[in-house]
Amino acid sequence: MTEALQDKYAPHSICFGCGPANEKGLRIKSFAEGDVYVADFTPEPYHHAFPGMLNGGIIGALLDCHSNWAACHHLMVKGGLDAPPCTVTADFHVKLRRPTPLRRVHLTARVTESTDDRAVVESELSCDGEITARCKGTFVAVKEGHPAYHRW
Amino acid sequence: MTEALQDKYAPHSICFGCGPANEKGLRIKSFAEGDVYVADFTPEPYHHAFPGMLNGGIIGALLDCHSNWAACHHLMVKGGLDAPPCTVTADFHVKLRRPTPLRRVHLTARVTESTDDRAVVESELSCDGEITARCKGTFVAVKEGHPAYHRW
Repeated sequence: MTEALQDKYAPHSICFGCGPANEKGLRIKSFAEGDVYVADFTPEPYHHAFPGMLNGGIIGALLDCHSNWAACHHLMVKGGLDAPPCTVTADFHVKLRRPTPLRRVHLTARVTESTDDRAVVESELSCDGEITARCKGTFVAVKEGHPAYHRW
Repeated sequence: MTEALQDKYAPHSICFGCGPANEKGLRIKSFAEGDVYVADFTPEPYHHAFPGMLNGGIIGALLDCHSNWAACHHLMVKGGLDAPPCTVTADFHVKLRRPTPLRRVHLTARVTESTDDRAVVESELSCDGEITARCKGTFVAVKEGHPAYHRW
């Protein structure tokens, strides 16, 4: 695929992490490669934790939003839907293995379990081929009436 | 105490989440009230997940940095040190209970376990008195040679 999931399915989203329409956000671009979801991200200079290293909160934000897109796209494909259901994060658990340099990072995510309306996603963040953080999260498709319904 | 922990002990920190010297960061201000650590934070308009609601990545960043300050201050007091040791996040697990409105939020954190060089911290984020997110994380004092040593 050549178009990011966010651009294809949620061009007007204002989400801080992944909304194409949030000019001050991180604007993550996630792509499906079979059942693996990938993204590359270049941090801003002010995303540091300390000189030269990426902040853990930003790492969490990247892994959370990227995993959420893995979840909703997976549920779309699984359910034979025309568009991804609006999923929200139930929880995410970030393990920081070592400092992450403040330069281009790579994200991968895989759905490891799912039902019709929720998915568990395991993801990794790496820099220069070295995994610096891992995450596991659960993402749930919301029903009509939830404030996130029709968010994209 | 009237001065935030960050301003007192790390005025030159550039951390995205809690560095007083990062003009584009979240600049969390944490205070010790006995063994409870508190902070208030007013999000920027662009910190949304969807209209009117706070992004989960920002919530994670707030809980991570605030908990880290609870950990390092606790270890300082416990060890009878003059300044907090430089702690880094080993892991943090965020549970989002319900959407968080995009307005002033309150954070609390407590150390639930600790050794000489690490602390487990449980924290909560609330808005208008309602808890919308909880977090549990582990924070470790780094040794000389680690890139975060002497970060504050």
